[in-house]
Amino acid sequence: MQDTKTNIDLQLEVIERGAEEILVKDELVEKLKRGTPLRIKAGFDPTAPDIHVGHTVLINKLKQFQDLGHEVLCLIGDFTAMIGDPTGKNITRQPLTPLQVAENAKTYEKQIFKVLDPKKTKIVFNSHWLGSLSAKDLIELAAKQTVARMLERDDFSKRYQQGVSIAIHEFLYPLLQGYDSVELRADVELGGTDQKFNLLMGRELQKASQQSPQVVITMPLLEGLDGIKKMSKSLNNYIGITDEPSEMFGKVMSISDGLMWRYYELLSFKPMAEIDALKTKVDEGMNPRDVKILLAKEIIARFHDAAAADEAEEKFIHQFSQGLMPEDIPVVNLSTDKDAIPLINALKDAGLTKSTSESMRMIKQGAVKLDGERVNTMEHLLKKGSAVVVQVGKRRFAEIKVSDSEPT
Amino acid sequence: MQDTKTNIDLQLEVIERGAEEILVKDELVEKLKRGTPLRIKAGFDPTAPDIHVGHTVLINKLKQFQDLGHEVLCLIGDFTAMIGDPTGKNITRQPLTPLQVAENAKTYEKQIFKVLDPKKTKIVFNSHWLGSLSAKDLIELAAKQTVARMLERDDFSKRYQQGVSIAIHEFLYPLLQGYDSVELRADVELGGTDQKFNLLMGRELQKASQQSPQVVITMPLLEGLDGIKKMSKSLNNYIGITDEPSEMFGKVMSISDGLMWRYYELLSFKPMAEIDALKTKVDEGMNPRDVKILLAKEIIARFHDAAAADEAEEKFIHQFSQGLMPEDIPVVNLSTDKDAIPLINALKDAGLTKSTSESMRMIKQGAVKLDGERVNTMEHLLKKGSAVVVQVGKRRFAEIKVSDSEPT
Repeated sequence: MQDTKTNIDLQLEVIERGAEEILVKDELVEKLKRGTPLRIKAGFDPTAPDIHVGHTVLINKLKQFQDLGHEVLCLIGDFTAMIGDPTGKNITRQPLTPLQVAENAKTYEKQIFKVLDPKKTKIVFNSHWLGSLSAKDLIELAAKQTVARMLERDDFSKRYQQGVSIAIHEFLYPLLQGYDSVELRADVELGGTDQKFNLLMGRELQKASQQSPQVVITMPLLEGLDGIKKMSKSLNNYIGITDEPSEMFGKVMSISDGLMWRYYELLSFKPMAEIDALKTKVDEGMNPRDVKILLAKEIIARFHDAAAADEAEEKFIHQFSQGLMPEDIPVVNLSTDKDAIPLINALKDAGLTKSTSESMRMIKQGAVKLDGERVNTMEHLLKKGSAVVVQVGKRRFAEIKVSDSEPT
Repeated sequence: MQDTKTNIDLQLEVIERGAEEILVKDELVEKLKRGTPLRIKAGFDPTAPDIHVGHTVLINKLKQFQDLGHEVLCLIGDFTAMIGDPTGKNITRQPLTPLQVAENAKTYEKQIFKVLDPKKTKIVFNSHWLGSLSAKDLIELAAKQTVARMLERDDFSKRYQQGVSIAIHEFLYPLLQGYDSVELRADVELGGTDQKFNLLMGRELQKASQQSPQVVITMPLLEGLDGIKKMSKSLNNYIGITDEPSEMFGKVMSISDGLMWRYYELLSFKPMAEIDALKTKVDEGMNPRDVKILLAKEIIARFHDAAAADEAEEKFIHQFSQGLMPEDIPVVNLSTDKDAIPLINALKDAGLTKSTSESMRMIKQGAVKLDGERVNTMEHLLKKGSAVVVQVGKRRFAEIKVSDSEPT
C-alpha cells in the first residue's frame, strides 16, 4: 500500500496531521506539485517571547515543513510592537524599544531553535518594510478592504454589537499582517484558529497584488493540563518550555489518558503509525502510564536533553511509584472544638479534594495515604493534636496538623 | 441702542448672518475676547476648481471674517486628491498630478480672490505636512477614533445599513481633515452642513493634541434657481461665477421673490440693516423687480465689474421690459391632422408651459404674446402651415411651426 503513495500524498499526510483547517487544500496540492521549496510563513509577537508547549504546536508544524524540504520564515512582528497601544488605554502594552525587540527576538530564537533547524530557518522583522511605509501607501492598502468585511471578524463583530469600542487603527493591523505576506511572497501561512481572519487577509491582499494567494493552515489551540481550557500561563495549566525537567515530567504524568493522545498528535514527532501502534498496545493491556512516560521523556529531551529526561524519569519513579513523598510538602493547620476531624472533611478543608464525596471516592479507589499507608475506611478520624502527611492520588500532598479551636 | 453694543456683539452679528450652526458659540465668544486675530480655516477640493455662487456662500463668510480683522487660511486638499480613488472603482476620480493640482489651485485663487483680499489670505496645501506623514503616524492618528464614532456619520451609517461597501481608507480621510486643523492650529473652521461630521473631527483631534478645539461654523447649501434643490451644475440651476454678465442678470431676475431675500442674506455684502430697509420698502409698494436688479448688479460687479453690471442691466431692460425677443429662439415643430392646434395645447406641447391649465393661467395673466402681441382669449388657434414667435412670461420663448401629420 505505502509504496503506491506519491510524494505529494506523503507530504499531505504530514501537513494535515493535527491541522484544524487547510484553505485551500487543492491549491496546496498545486503548490506542492511545483516540486520547489515552498515559503512557509508564521508570525510571532515580540511582546511575549516566553513560550509554553502550547505555542510549539505551530512551531512543530513548521519543523515538519522544514523536514519536507520547505523554507521556513519566522516573522517577528516588531513594527506594531514598536507602536504599542497608541490609545494609551492598555498600560500593559507599552511600545517596545528597538533594543527590547532585539532582546525578545533573541529569546524567541533560543526557544524555537530547540525545535527548528537554525540553518533552514529565516528570521525576518516586518519593521524592515513597514518602517518605510508612508501614510499614502497605507491609505492605498486600506482602500483594498471594506469596513463590512472587517466587521465580519468574530471579535470585532461581537465588540461592535456589544458597544465595546474598536479603535480605527485596529482595522489597519490585519491589513499590515496581510501586507507582510505580500512582501514575503508566502506560499503558506500557519496560525492558530483564532488567527484565521487575519491569515485570510493575506490571501486577499496577495490576490490584489497579482500574487498566487497563500494557503492558510490553522492549528488548534492546545488544551492545558486540565484537558478543558486552552493552555495559558494565566490559568496555570501549562508546561513552560523552560520548566525544570522534573516539573515537566510531573506535569505530563498528571494529564488524562485521553489528553495524552492529543498531546502525542500535536507535540510528538513520532510518526502517526508509531503512535497508532502504541494505542493498540494500550488497548491490549499496556499500562498507559508507560506511554505517558515516553511522551514526557520526548518533550524533556527536546527542551533539555536525553540525560535530563532519563534523570527525571528515575526521580519520578523513585518518588511516586515507590510511594515516597516530595520534599516541600505544604503544612495545613486545621482546628476543631471536638476531639477529632473526620478524614473525609479534613481532605476537603485542606484543599486536597473538592468535596467530601470526592474524598470518599478517592478513599474507595485506594488513592489516599496517611504517612505512606493506604486508608481503607471512610470513617478514619484525625485526632486533635496529631500531625500526618496525607497523599491523594499521585501528586497531591499536604501535612495536616489538627489543633484546638481558638476561644471565640 | 447700537452704541451700547460691544465689539464682540457686532462681530457676532456678522458671523452669525446666514450661518446654519455655530459649535460652540460660547467658545467663539471666548476666542473673540482674546482680541487677537483668529485663524479661520476652510478646505477646498482641488479636483473641482470651477465654482458657482453656491460655493461662494462659504467664501463670503471668510470675507466677513477677513473684514473683521481675522486671518483666513484656504486649505487646498491636494494630498488626498493626489491619491485619487485607490479602489479604481471611481474612474472619474483619477489621481491628480502635482501639475494639475497647481493649475487647479491657480484657478481657485483667481476665483476666490474675486471675493477675498489676496493680501490677507493664506493659501496652504495639506500635502505639505501629510506628504511626509508615515504609516506609523497615521496608525497613531487612527488610534484616536473609534469605528462606532465613524459609523455615526450620516452617509457611512446609511451605506453600512444598506450593505453598500465602505472602503477602510474612507475612515481615514476625515481623520486627515481633522489633522489639518491640528497642523494649522485653526481657531474656526467653516464648511457646508454636509461637512459637519468632518469639521467636528478636527475639534476632537485638536483636543487630543492639547489644543483649544476649533469652533465649527456650518453654512447652508444654497438653493438653486428653482428655489428647491441645492444649486449644482448637474441640475443646471446654478449661476457660475464665470457666466457672462447678461446670463447672470437673467438668472438672478428669474428667481422668486422669496428666494431673492435668501440670496441677499447669503450672497450680498449689504449690511442686514440695509436689506431689512429694502424689505420694508417692498412691503410698502416698491417693485421687487427693482430690488432683484440691485442684487443682480452686485453679483455681476463682483465677478466682472461695475461697467459690466450697468451694461447687463441696460440690455435686460431693453430686451424684456421693452418686450423684445432674444436672438436665438428655439424652433419647435408641431404637427396635426386637423386644421389647427389650440394655443393652450401648443404652449404645453412646445414645453413653454407644464400643462394646459398653466397655459390658461398665463393667458389670463396677460403673460402670453404671439409675435409681440398679447393674447386675450383662451380659444386662440394656431393654423396649420403657420409659424409664430411665442413668448410666455419674461424668459420663455419659442418659434412654433404647425405642419401636417405625416401619414402613418
